[in-house]
Amino acid sequence: MAKRKKLSGFPEWLPEEKLIEQFFIDKIRSKFELYGFGPLEPRSVEPLDVLLSKGDDKEIYLLNRLHSDPNKKAEFGLHFDMTVPYARFVEQNRGQLIFPYKRYQIQKAWRGERPQEGRYREFYQADIDVIAEHELDISYDAELPRIILELFSELPLPQFTLKINNRKILSGFYQSLGIKDTAASLRIVDKLDKIGNDGVLKLLIDDLELEANIANKCLELATIKTADSSFYEKVKAFGFSNKLLDEGLEELKYVMDSLADLDAKVYADLSIARGLDYYTGTVFESEMLGYERLGSICSGGRYDNLASDNKIKLPGIGISIGLTRILGPLFNEKRLEASRKTPTAVLVALVDEASKAQAHRVANILRKRNIPSEVYHKAQKFGKQIKAAERKGITYVCFYNPDSPDKHELKNIKTGEQSSIDINTWKLPESESGIQISLKN
Amino acid sequence: MAKRKKLSGFPEWLPEEKLIEQFFIDKIRSKFELYGFGPLEPRSVEPLDVLLSKGDDKEIYLLNRLHSDPNKKAEFGLHFDMTVPYARFVEQNRGQLIFPYKRYQIQKAWRGERPQEGRYREFYQADIDVIAEHELDISYDAELPRIILELFSELPLPQFTLKINNRKILSGFYQSLGIKDTAASLRIVDKLDKIGNDGVLKLLIDDLELEANIANKCLELATIKTADSSFYEKVKAFGFSNKLLDEGLEELKYVMDSLADLDAKVYADLSIARGLDYYTGTVFESEMLGYERLGSICSGGRYDNLASDNKIKLPGIGISIGLTRILGPLFNEKRLEASRKTPTAVLVALVDEASKAQAHRVANILRKRNIPSEVYHKAQKFGKQIKAAERKGITYVCFYNPDSPDKHELKNIKTGEQSSIDINTWKLPESESGIQISLKN
Repeated sequence: MAKRKKLSGFPEWLPEEKLIEQFFIDKIRSKFELYGFGPLEPRSVEPLDVLLSKGDDKEIYLLNRLHSDPNKKAEFGLHFDMTVPYARFVEQNRGQLIFPYKRYQIQKAWRGERPQEGRYREFYQADIDVIAEHELDISYDAELPRIILELFSELPLPQFTLKINNRKILSGFYQSLGIKDTAASLRIVDKLDKIGNDGVLKLLIDDLELEANIANKCLELATIKTADSSFYEKVKAFGFSNKLLDEGLEELKYVMDSLADLDAKVYADLSIARGLDYYTGTVFESEMLGYERLGSICSGGRYDNLASDNKIKLPGIGISIGLTRILGPLFNEKRLEASRKTPTAVLVALVDEASKAQAHRVANILRKRNIPSEVYHKAQKFGKQIKAAERKGITYVCFYNPDSPDKHELKNIKTGEQSSIDINTWKLPESESGIQISLKN
Repeated sequence: MAKRKKLSGFPEWLPEEKLIEQFFIDKIRSKFELYGFGPLEPRSVEPLDVLLSKGDDKEIYLLNRLHSDPNKKAEFGLHFDMTVPYARFVEQNRGQLIFPYKRYQIQKAWRGERPQEGRYREFYQADIDVIAEHELDISYDAELPRIILELFSELPLPQFTLKINNRKILSGFYQSLGIKDTAASLRIVDKLDKIGNDGVLKLLIDDLELEANIANKCLELATIKTADSSFYEKVKAFGFSNKLLDEGLEELKYVMDSLADLDAKVYADLSIARGLDYYTGTVFESEMLGYERLGSICSGGRYDNLASDNKIKLPGIGISIGLTRILGPLFNEKRLEASRKTPTAVLVALVDEASKAQAHRVANILRKRNIPSEVYHKAQKFGKQIKAAERKGITYVCFYNPDSPDKHELKNIKTGEQSSIDINTWKLPESESGIQISLKN
């Protein structure tokens, strides 16, 4: 077969990189499950009208069967995120769910975007969402960032910063200023970190025809950023009050107060609005130190009207980790390293072809004791077999005695120590039981 | 939104079913890793020529961007199995792999087939394969069925039977009989369990124009089925010998002898040929007791020429578990049951709204100790909160003391026992630490 090239936008990790991705997925899952979120995995395809009815203008991939009539229009496409299929799933299966329904979804999504750093055509997202019937308690607005902050402090990643806001504050504040199109103001203010203070002011004045002092107040609000609940007094100092604004302030204060015990970089940042139309309250955005160019790597918010049934409201809140967006640049820069390149903890050297059955017997005993093991494939010189273990980062090589049932030689090839062990009782050190991932500078 | 229907062929599991599927995936992965197989996850799409060049005429799903020129022909499609992308990946990245390369791949595949029981348009497969440079040791032909037999004996599934053959035996035997088109004979014999003895004879005689006594010999060989290596003498008794036949006999004998220590239903079954052209030696097929109608739920074989480089041979062997095919019917019949419907082990009852911070503090302490916990969302009557825990299958409900830092009441709602515990030291019983899955009759 001719040499093939990579497909732009469809990343494929090498075995060591996939081991690292799997490590991240496992850690993320464990943390989600610790908070009572269960797995869900909607199908990868959605009817076209579902994909087109939600969110902004994504580059959707349509599916056509090779053998179908070429004039037949596609009815389905691949999903472009986790939220739209989740909302559809909840609407469709409401009678069989227990609410508040907490689920995680770690799945691939597809977008036909122009590929660039941090933007892929096929990528993993890891989402958690809670959807309730009628009303969703504010405590979930605090639970989601807590999970994320804990998780990122435990993962081998650069410093992570989470920024939280509440759209009600912005909308309520704009109402008090007499601004009619609060949604348009939100979208302009959301560009603050891209176009700067002057850019925002210009758009507010030119596009929305706001008076300069009104536009200035919008900007003033957006520049409030505090590591605790002190944003509250700063907003109150403007002297405005209305239902929406006051609700937003109380909600964001509750969230920030709830996170006060964590030693984490979390801010109430009143410039955050998030582009998507469906957010109605709390919104999250984040960045990774040194990788601000990637944009937000973990974001989400509350959506009180995304999922709905004809009869009742199904308010929800969710947050999404852009796993591929995080790992892609770190892999490119070779910043993540696995302690070994294989699940194998013990390589059983093959002493000679005649004792192959014994080699496999030894490996089988180790495996029965839950110690990942494999037999070297060829009776080469021990030096060559040790070298192969080294290349894979395996610490232990077992040189079995072809005639002994239990007693065999075990060499730690990292320290050079060798000793005679009983394979029925030898304990794999805790530090070797799994693969460790470290972040390099 | 209007009530939506399920999409035929694209199964979606309910939360409890997805928990069960996740349990299976985790068990499968652990077993694969125990034998030194590492994860790999090639992209979901392949260039069309890769998809079309391998295997039989699958119903391929093409991908087109919604915004692309409607006259532009699709260049990519979704993969229909794990083997074709794996072989392409190995060819493409050979310089960066360590051989023999052992990988597992647990991923979805897509086929535009007509949906029916056991046949889906989107489905999970769990594959392991080993690919070597130049030569692949016969011990892998024995390792793969060992893994599968161990795995299926440990999973909550109906009785599993594995049937093993070696194509060299069939081809070599046909050669000795003077049959020219050995591949066509293979394909006909492979239909034995579908069309029976007479059907096979008829096709061999009518289509291949074999003499009746030759056709009868083919059938005689195909009816050999032994639970040990006694097939060997039975074939030898025909009195034939050639390189291919003898090699096949030795290989299958090695495999069967290697599995003799396992207490499992495994047979040397000389009727097995597998439909795919690329198999060259050992082949596997299986069935699940009571679900024979699904066909093989786990199959594979050795392919010495599937992956290749211009310079060297890359022989491989693999086996694939049809996870969705196995779980689909069991879910339909509600035969699998999870001990609880959520990862949550302890539900912290919300005593009153005023003590909500304490409720979350208690849950956070439990979680720090790795005990999955969640706080009930509303300060309802305790009876209602206990009922909610019951519905989810949660065993423990914690009634905290709003004023105590560590001492709280814990009720086992399955036994009714209640006691005062210290949340900093209380141990979750081992049996409650994960979700148990059981098979019902």
